[in-house]
Amino acid sequence: MSNLKAIKDPNFLKELSLSELTNLAEEIRSFLIENIKKTGGHLASNLGVVELTIALHYVFNSPLDSIIFDVSHQSYTHKILTGRINDFPTLRKAQGLSGYASYHESVHDKWESGHAGTSLSALFGYLKANQLKGKKDEVIAVVGDASITNGTNMEALNLLASEKDLKGIIVINDNKMSISKSVGAFSKVLTNLRGSPFLGKLKAFFKKITPAFIYRFFGRLKRAFKALLQRQNIFEEMGYVYIGPFDGNNLKELIGAFKAAKKLNKSVVIHTITQKGKGYSPAESDLKGVYHGVEPSVIGTSSKENNKISFSEAISVIIEKLTEKEDIFVVMPAMLMGTKFLAYQKKYPRRIIDVGIAEEHAAVMSASLALNGVNVFLPLYSTFSQRAYDQILNDIARPNLKVIIGIDRAGFVGEDGSTHQGLYDVSMFLSMPNVSVTMPKDMKEAAGLLKYAFSKNQPFVIRYPRTNTELITLDEITPLAPSWELLRKGKKGIIISYGPILLEIEKLLIANNFDFSLCNARYIRPLDEKLLKELLKEHQLLIVYEETHASGSLYQFILAFAMENGFKNHIIALNAYNKIINHGTIEDNRKAAALSMADLKRVIEEDEIR
Amino acid sequence: MSNLKAIKDPNFLKELSLSELTNLAEEIRSFLIENIKKTGGHLASNLGVVELTIALHYVFNSPLDSIIFDVSHQSYTHKILTGRINDFPTLRKAQGLSGYASYHESVHDKWESGHAGTSLSALFGYLKANQLKGKKDEVIAVVGDASITNGTNMEALNLLASEKDLKGIIVINDNKMSISKSVGAFSKVLTNLRGSPFLGKLKAFFKKITPAFIYRFFGRLKRAFKALLQRQNIFEEMGYVYIGPFDGNNLKELIGAFKAAKKLNKSVVIHTITQKGKGYSPAESDLKGVYHGVEPSVIGTSSKENNKISFSEAISVIIEKLTEKEDIFVVMPAMLMGTKFLAYQKKYPRRIIDVGIAEEHAAVMSASLALNGVNVFLPLYSTFSQRAYDQILNDIARPNLKVIIGIDRAGFVGEDGSTHQGLYDVSMFLSMPNVSVTMPKDMKEAAGLLKYAFSKNQPFVIRYPRTNTELITLDEITPLAPSWELLRKGKKGIIISYGPILLEIEKLLIANNFDFSLCNARYIRPLDEKLLKELLKEHQLLIVYEETHASGSLYQFILAFAMENGFKNHIIALNAYNKIINHGTIEDNRKAAALSMADLKRVIEEDEIR
Repeated sequence: MSNLKAIKDPNFLKELSLSELTNLAEEIRSFLIENIKKTGGHLASNLGVVELTIALHYVFNSPLDSIIFDVSHQSYTHKILTGRINDFPTLRKAQGLSGYASYHESVHDKWESGHAGTSLSALFGYLKANQLKGKKDEVIAVVGDASITNGTNMEALNLLASEKDLKGIIVINDNKMSISKSVGAFSKVLTNLRGSPFLGKLKAFFKKITPAFIYRFFGRLKRAFKALLQRQNIFEEMGYVYIGPFDGNNLKELIGAFKAAKKLNKSVVIHTITQKGKGYSPAESDLKGVYHGVEPSVIGTSSKENNKISFSEAISVIIEKLTEKEDIFVVMPAMLMGTKFLAYQKKYPRRIIDVGIAEEHAAVMSASLALNGVNVFLPLYSTFSQRAYDQILNDIARPNLKVIIGIDRAGFVGEDGSTHQGLYDVSMFLSMPNVSVTMPKDMKEAAGLLKYAFSKNQPFVIRYPRTNTELITLDEITPLAPSWELLRKGKKGIIISYGPILLEIEKLLIANNFDFSLCNARYIRPLDEKLLKELLKEHQLLIVYEETHASGSLYQFILAFAMENGFKNHIIALNAYNKIINHGTIEDNRKAAALSMADLKRVIEEDEIR
Repeated sequence: MSNLKAIKDPNFLKELSLSELTNLAEEIRSFLIENIKKTGGHLASNLGVVELTIALHYVFNSPLDSIIFDVSHQSYTHKILTGRINDFPTLRKAQGLSGYASYHESVHDKWESGHAGTSLSALFGYLKANQLKGKKDEVIAVVGDASITNGTNMEALNLLASEKDLKGIIVINDNKMSISKSVGAFSKVLTNLRGSPFLGKLKAFFKKITPAFIYRFFGRLKRAFKALLQRQNIFEEMGYVYIGPFDGNNLKELIGAFKAAKKLNKSVVIHTITQKGKGYSPAESDLKGVYHGVEPSVIGTSSKENNKISFSEAISVIIEKLTEKEDIFVVMPAMLMGTKFLAYQKKYPRRIIDVGIAEEHAAVMSASLALNGVNVFLPLYSTFSQRAYDQILNDIARPNLKVIIGIDRAGFVGEDGSTHQGLYDVSMFLSMPNVSVTMPKDMKEAAGLLKYAFSKNQPFVIRYPRTNTELITLDEITPLAPSWELLRKGKKGIIISYGPILLEIEKLLIANNFDFSLCNARYIRPLDEKLLKELLKEHQLLIVYEETHASGSLYQFILAFAMENGFKNHIIALNAYNKIINHGTIEDNRKAAALSMADLKRVIEEDEIR
């Protein structure tokens, strides 16, 4: 391992022999398995691209040449080769190494996105910038088989193909599964390409034999043949040079392919087939994505808190229960595993569709199902729901269609950091007409909200955080109509919040003997105007605590309500304002946003003595 | 014409002969030209699809079969055939016929989107709903050559191809131009398909001759040939049956194609080539999109108000001027004509790229250009900027990149109605970190804001409405740093607003002798805190007038600022709240939102006597 720790930048690779490179790959692989066992992180995807990354840095000259990773959760080997191995013990920890590419960490990190599907657009921008500045450096995008079919990438794939003056190198990291099994025609196309003999050889062969015996038979065949030969696959059809498929874990093949790509003067698609999880057998055979991202505890041990489940799982259990009586259909963009809907899929295979990383399509499809009277549940991670802002606003909210949207990972998400924080969805959905926006404090409330949502005929958002909640048995579920709940009565002021953080706030109030009321604003919209009026009458001091961005928050709506109704209370906001919140634990995130219970305590103490 | 006016639904078509259908097409075409001359509307696209729409309604049975129009600005013939001709004099007028499909108008209107690129996702949803409900009705999506490459449609195109149990009919309305010239590889693919002989015939021919003489030469050729023959074009590669190209203005060809599609039991792409503007020669020869959407006055007469230009044009003139000194590059999603950048393109062809209807790609590409030190101007219509919410937030705003975003058609847009209102961008951009959000009242201020924006190194939004402004000569442009401007001093209160509406408000105050101050909040963010504090001290009554949705508005930020600084003023909001604002003139829109000058007058009068 001593070698690895001495790496400053990837230049040293140029001097290595193939067998030395192969040894390096094994060293890196062992290091990754050992380290991720301790720190958690994206295991399988990183194990898959060890050789690919080494070969890229061997052939190209980063940072002059630019290597763009789609999403960039697979950039661990890249981080090692660019001199960051000593930071791996702090991987995804506060102030530690990011789990994604990071502009702040290294000049070798050229694209920091975290969201899938942007690498080809970024590639296009880099190429255009090089052209404008007269630079001839190479630009390479590494994109997975599931990300390449995201709308943004498809737009770029379509456009770049017709830019004859730009040369981009697109490396498809085809691991035959992506986060979960990839879907769609492109997947089939890639499968076909994998299975067929190397078409390039055939093409050469055809070119040789065609004139010899075909011409004599039929003149027009020439053009027809040429046309057919020029359309070997979807990439060539679009105008790319296609080479592959190559064994993406074979350094020799990869180096050959990348060198060939370097010599070309037009855009090229290099199809590599990598083995996700390679070198760690549980991850190799995992088809569902269990080892996509792992907590430190997942590898080796198995632990589950007593009677606690994740909110994601609680929601899937409730939807499963509701499906017994309601005619529910789940539209799922790629996150079957992440949103814990695998069991649901097994029980109701005809009631769920996995559309892959295609949030925009998912939202439009949901609207069109709703138009046809289908009761849709659409679970989205808060951060990925941003992708479908227009489609949810224009196609679901504006015409007031019944789509029940589950917003998972709402609020702070912890280790994934700034690109994944669920801090914008409240602002997003409150800007849309007709949408109810809710957040339950526990599983029972979640069940009541969902039961109510399915009984109504309008768009409805239920958001829930990346934390655990107590598992309850679901017998009869009582619908929970728009209302707030007073959890606690006090005299010196009131705290208004929503979600499971209420339970922590309640503990804080009890532990410190704070004489404060506590209100559960489980409906962020509509406001419980009757109760809010009473609260404004009873309490001069209101504190609105939210894990959200400031703009379009409950706080602002309470301010507006107070103003419109002539109240002059003192109303304090605790929220994430405009801050970028980086990786760390969820608790670290709270501290970074000045939203920890200690922060709340300080605010209460400062204000109760006014 | 009497025939047309008697149409109640499309059933009557089934009884007509081909020549009667042809006559009908001519009647409809004449009607459309005459009517749109009077009312304005989307001329060229509707003239192109007269026969296509007739053939669809002749072969299929709407509303049992569902016809989905992408965008749906091309649905005028569909409106006529479904009994709405008598409403055409009210086209795009308040309470009149919508310029798009409308759920409220007709059961035949199955998809109301207004935004390009959603028809295939909608098709997918309809098909899935039919499957869930055991319905066998046909679903047809009509999509233009420029819309099919939008990310959402590409996601759906990819996914639908692999759903073997669903049968969708995709009609490509290939008019070789879309709003402006279409771009990208798909465009090339369609061009190739147009030019080549009907491949289906060739395929049959190959099948016949292949075994006879090839087998003897080389055994493996069979599989190779088969593979090659199965991959004739990009659609077939994905798994669709492809038929075409057909003359999209030839009823006989179209009816034959649609009947064939009806008989198939798998998803099919029908490629039709239509002539945009057919039957009206100025529109037929228009390659730039002048006749895409027309004002009543454009046809026949030519008028330009003295020394007034549209804000879109003013911005393009300013960017042209700034390009003399700054190294500017314009990323343009499809709206070259709409945003008046044709002259710029002519002058600086290497400084602008038209990426087509691909707002997400445009935003990501802009981020990546900015990372490379290119000064990007990215003009988007407010309503279409919603498409790129995630990309602007995550890829531009979060990492604080210098992209100057022009938001055109901000505020009310008039005739295009609810799907196009520019009421959400303030809320969108205020939810994002690092972004300055501005709106100039006139061309001079716009120049100052843009000059300042390009001198800084951060994301910057300048929004401007679909109205005219006075043309000024641009010599030296003085950068306009974050600040507000007091336009008028009064004693009874203050009105705070932004944009050219300030000029109307000023007139109102003068005409009515209202003793009110007027403040130009040209920076919606950052607030001019120093001035705002003074204003809050001087005026007990503040009225914040905004053509925006309520959530995440300037009003809410002023409330929060007042609260945080201990002010107890009376602050009134005039904004569009949660209302859906339909088509009409911009003045009609204002009235519908209770934001007309008469509404403001009423609010001033009610409150100044308090």
